[in-house]
Amino acid sequence: MAQVAVITESEQLKTLWLVVAGSLIFFMNAGFAMLETGLCQVRNSTNVLAKNLIVFCVSILAFWILGFGLMFGNGNGWLGNTGLFFQAFDPPLQNGFGGGFDSLQILYPNQPWMVVFFFQLVFAGTTATIVSGAMAERVKFWAFFSFSFCLVAIAYPITGRWVWHPNGWLTTNFNFLDFAGSTVVHSVGGMAGLVGTILIGPRRGWQGYNPDATKGHRFNDSPQNFGYNNLSFATLGCLILWLGWLGFNGGSARSIAHIPHIIATTMLAGASGGVFVLLLRGLRSHKPALSLVINGILGGLVSITASSVYVSLAAAIIIGAVSSIWIILLEKLLEQLKIDDPVGAIPVHLGCGIWGTLAAGLFANQLPPYINYPVIRIEQIFAQAIGIIAINLATIIFSLIFWLLIGLIIYLLESINNTFKSSTNRSYSLGDRELN
Amino acid sequence: MAQVAVITESEQLKTLWLVVAGSLIFFMNAGFAMLETGLCQVRNSTNVLAKNLIVFCVSILAFWILGFGLMFGNGNGWLGNTGLFFQAFDPPLQNGFGGGFDSLQILYPNQPWMVVFFFQLVFAGTTATIVSGAMAERVKFWAFFSFSFCLVAIAYPITGRWVWHPNGWLTTNFNFLDFAGSTVVHSVGGMAGLVGTILIGPRRGWQGYNPDATKGHRFNDSPQNFGYNNLSFATLGCLILWLGWLGFNGGSARSIAHIPHIIATTMLAGASGGVFVLLLRGLRSHKPALSLVINGILGGLVSITASSVYVSLAAAIIIGAVSSIWIILLEKLLEQLKIDDPVGAIPVHLGCGIWGTLAAGLFANQLPPYINYPVIRIEQIFAQAIGIIAINLATIIFSLIFWLLIGLIIYLLESINNTFKSSTNRSYSLGDRELN
Amino acid sequence: MAQVAVITESEQLKTLWLVVAGSLIFFMNAGFAMLETGLCQVRNSTNVLAKNLIVFCVSILAFWILGFGLMFGNGNGWLGNTGLFFQAFDPPLQNGFGGGFDSLQILYPNQPWMVVFFFQLVFAGTTATIVSGAMAERVKFWAFFSFSFCLVAIAYPITGRWVWHPNGWLTTNFNFLDFAGSTVVHSVGGMAGLVGTILIGPRRGWQGYNPDATKGHRFNDSPQNFGYNNLSFATLGCLILWLGWLGFNGGSARSIAHIPHIIATTMLAGASGGVFVLLLRGLRSHKPALSLVINGILGGLVSITASSVYVSLAAAIIIGAVSSIWIILLEKLLEQLKIDDPVGAIPVHLGCGIWGTLAAGLFANQLPPYINYPVIRIEQIFAQAIGIIAINLATIIFSLIFWLLIGLIIYLLESINNTFKSSTNRSYSLGDRELN
Repeated sequence: MAQVAVITESEQLKTLWLVVAGSLIFFMNAGFAMLETGLCQVRNSTNVLAKNLIVFCVSILAFWILGFGLMFGNGNGWLGNTGLFFQAFDPPLQNGFGGGFDSLQILYPNQPWMVVFFFQLVFAGTTATIVSGAMAERVKFWAFFSFSFCLVAIAYPITGRWVWHPNGWLTTNFNFLDFAGSTVVHSVGGMAGLVGTILIGPRRGWQGYNPDATKGHRFNDSPQNFGYNNLSFATLGCLILWLGWLGFNGGSARSIAHIPHIIATTMLAGASGGVFVLLLRGLRSHKPALSLVINGILGGLVSITASSVYVSLAAAIIIGAVSSIWIILLEKLLEQLKIDDPVGAIPVHLGCGIWGTLAAGLFANQLPPYINYPVIRIEQIFAQAIGIIAINLATIIFSLIFWLLIGLIIYLLESINNTFKSSTNRSYSLGDRELN
Repeated sequence: MAQVAVITESEQLKTLWLVVAGSLIFFMNAGFAMLETGLCQVRNSTNVLAKNLIVFCVSILAFWILGFGLMFGNGNGWLGNTGLFFQAFDPPLQNGFGGGFDSLQILYPNQPWMVVFFFQLVFAGTTATIVSGAMAERVKFWAFFSFSFCLVAIAYPITGRWVWHPNGWLTTNFNFLDFAGSTVVHSVGGMAGLVGTILIGPRRGWQGYNPDATKGHRFNDSPQNFGYNNLSFATLGCLILWLGWLGFNGGSARSIAHIPHIIATTMLAGASGGVFVLLLRGLRSHKPALSLVINGILGGLVSITASSVYVSLAAAIIIGAVSSIWIILLEKLLEQLKIDDPVGAIPVHLGCGIWGTLAAGLFANQLPPYINYPVIRIEQIFAQAIGIIAINLATIIFSLIFWLLIGLIIYLLESINNTFKSSTNRSYSLGDRELN
Repeated sequence: MAQVAVITESEQLKTLWLVVAGSLIFFMNAGFAMLETGLCQVRNSTNVLAKNLIVFCVSILAFWILGFGLMFGNGNGWLGNTGLFFQAFDPPLQNGFGGGFDSLQILYPNQPWMVVFFFQLVFAGTTATIVSGAMAERVKFWAFFSFSFCLVAIAYPITGRWVWHPNGWLTTNFNFLDFAGSTVVHSVGGMAGLVGTILIGPRRGWQGYNPDATKGHRFNDSPQNFGYNNLSFATLGCLILWLGWLGFNGGSARSIAHIPHIIATTMLAGASGGVFVLLLRGLRSHKPALSLVINGILGGLVSITASSVYVSLAAAIIIGAVSSIWIILLEKLLEQLKIDDPVGAIPVHLGCGIWGTLAAGLFANQLPPYINYPVIRIEQIFAQAIGIIAINLATIIFSLIFWLLIGLIIYLLESINNTFKSSTNRSYSLGDRELN
């Protein structure tokens, strides 16, 4: 067994916090499940829940097999090439790293690598879960299952490495700032969802959508109303997610002393998103739209994720308030573009993820000691833009490849199946028509 | 940037515990939301949830703008007058205090003040949430929104200062004991709710209530039955609140070594409240009344809040058992007085809050090292009574002022509105008649 | 007051972790309540919830009065005989032990005993809650209330002592390995449920069951379908339980440095259980059975409980995968044997509890420093078998005695009652016929 370093109490404390924060982030799976089952139609409820539950199981296995090595293994600024098939390097109870993970000693000095594995794992799982929201109520179970595996095994760890690995090219060349993942986690999840949503089309009946009509006549003028399953679940989901975000942002702190400031900005941005979205639209209609408040809060939380340690409390409130404008505009835009996003995952995670990453450039007025240079405003904003474009573009390409491959396999499997079974009317698609 | 003190590992540990405990308390918002949506009628569910969600957002902003300064800023034993508009003093990542918060160095030595802000914030938010329970299903959204802001910005921090600021007049003159807020949080929330409930009247149909009838004929003999939305949500809410209480009481410990005793008394008092309320009423009816067990547990938890560090385990059980008697009697009394409290917030938070604060005087048999004098039983009971009366009286006065001002503004706004729109039949009241 | 030892920061950290882990385990009560209300019929929902809520309250009192002393008091390897009526030894805020709990200084050096009380209490409560799942929807409220008290006061602490007390005969003679209670907690709960379920019979209508028919004709060929109340609650319950398991297994760590490995094996086994149960049965039917995935995950978690600190990550995945086979086979077997287990508690907790305990013998490849001898595979497997048989046998005997005594008392009470009231048609049984 490898040699065990002497661990200080301060390092033990850090270990404990990573465990607690990781547990809170893990619990976000319950938040997403409740949010999505609450905002979807009751008849698709079981399907939505099953996807939410299995996606995290799949993510764990995918990250263990391949993802963690690609993201934190040794290699260049683009890709890791050691530590794949994690089990080969499994030295239980060991402290310190080695065996293909030199970077972790820099990022998490003297931490047992299992705690890093756990903490990074729950981030990866969150990314995959976001996708399920945008594609809810219509994506085929096994297609989504496979996509989640690919996303967490390959796409997420590669783009994540660019930012969070000490040698990542976005970090070393541009000092791209994304503290806890407005882009690395939320934009990536939201963008993968957007690509999938466009490929798969809306739910049957949404804005009168009829996938069997000829092109150009698929939307009619009598939109069917899609009710909510149960807003109690959605509200619970929102509050569980908010709780989890305290671990999400707080757990990313390098030092215990930074946590309180991070928690405070996170609380304020969430509250600001909720209150301003209500003031912006609620005052007009005199009726509080609960689903809007929920997404306003979540948008504020996504926005502050990139910068919670770098900005002042006042800036956190501004960031949250601006995100509420984004939410309203983007929801309107998606409706115009006939893109069906049942739970509002794209405005919240992609829209506010981009905004939050830009905001880190706009408002960062302090950098923790470990980033040893002053922020030059215009350069930092440029760096943020580079990072946003690079990661989103990569996610689009990865998602297209994954969905097309999965679609091809489904087409082939169903063709083979039909050859023997002579059943017709199969869909040959990623979407589960019967669901809706 | 201000100078940063050297932080010991023991202080870091305290910081971490305040973050974790604060997170558990934050999660109580989900508990209250689930409890209230579960115990209300399904048709008002969305309205109840929206209030529960927005009230915490509003509280965060109100406490940031004004409340924290009033409560912990420098000043006299009645009122703080520095640190208002918190953002002016925003030194991120800083340790130690100063800049208007001398008291915090005494209460939380060497803690980053952001952690105190967060921890105190979630207490303030709890107070406001309690009000929503008593007034559920009928208070106007914007009236409640405004009241919550005033309560957290002004009333709660002022009465809270009297007890929890080192120079608070109830502490310095009387040694009033309220460990984690049976009075400071729960009574204040319950009393504000009681005042509001009396002003606004019952839900239409409750005990046959008809607000349009002439006075004296508003209640008829055929009471309409108000069913529950879903007791699964209410049970979940109860357990989330119990979980949060471990942070609520445990987080108030001055030292890590005190936490286990606090947790143990909290567990026992909650269990005792649940079991005794069942034995008292359940044995007679042979049917377990789930909503009663829920309120029995919550009553036990409210009762032990004032004294969880001061009393023995056996005393905790007695305190919980007595609170269950209170719950039953007060629910009956409110019904007699025609006061409609849909979720039982007044017996639980006001009734057991008062009892718990008295019980701290009756049962305190030990005081942590930082209170350096013996308890003299009769004097302490007298001190407790003084504190209970002072804080509840102040809360009544504050609540009346806030509700009347808000009512006046609504009246004026609606009059102006009607002048132009010539719509009639507006209610000019704090209550949302259409809700019910 | 006893002398107070100087506590190191490392010990404070341990105290804090026990509080946090205990809180997560406490929250498992919400998980069980949601799981059971979700998987039962809507019309019995309130009854199921009331049992879940009160069972924990009862457990707290039972463990306080008798259980903790029997389990950790001084005595021999079979039974404790000091520390009964815990309140007699109540030294609040005290560190160190004594007064009848010599063992705790070995197990939890320098920890305040209240934290041990809390941490052990939530384990005891879990055991009792498991029983409610297997007997859901038909056991009489007061019968279950009484059984829970007996289980936590007497049966659980005695069998638990055999393993977790430093002098327990299974530990000292056989080195039986059960890290966090696959057998001590889960098998015991599952076995007590199985005994109760057999005694009480199925729900009326399950597989056409008619308790009023003559023996041999009680099941007919037209099974009535028992739907689920709401799978959203069940999914939430599963995720809350998974969260709690991080405290369940992680909290049992002797050292902070062991926690991350424990968390990682726990995550992987749960994920493996969920994915493999889906692959095994889901691939055939093309439809994801959500309730199956839920039980697959829970089975994986139960299985890894005995060995999470002793096995590699790869072994954790195998343990979880095998548990999914068990779940499927045992659910089928129970159906064949006409044993009605509404939520699948017996396959999950009893079945996977036994498997997990065996697996600890099969896969343990490392033992923490405090177990100072190498694992000899065949001996260890034999030891595991001894422990499994001894504890399950004892649980069967205890359960039979408790249920028969409770049944006798109910019979007597109802006979007396009937003598005076002359009502007929009373059931004289443990089961609540009207429920179904």
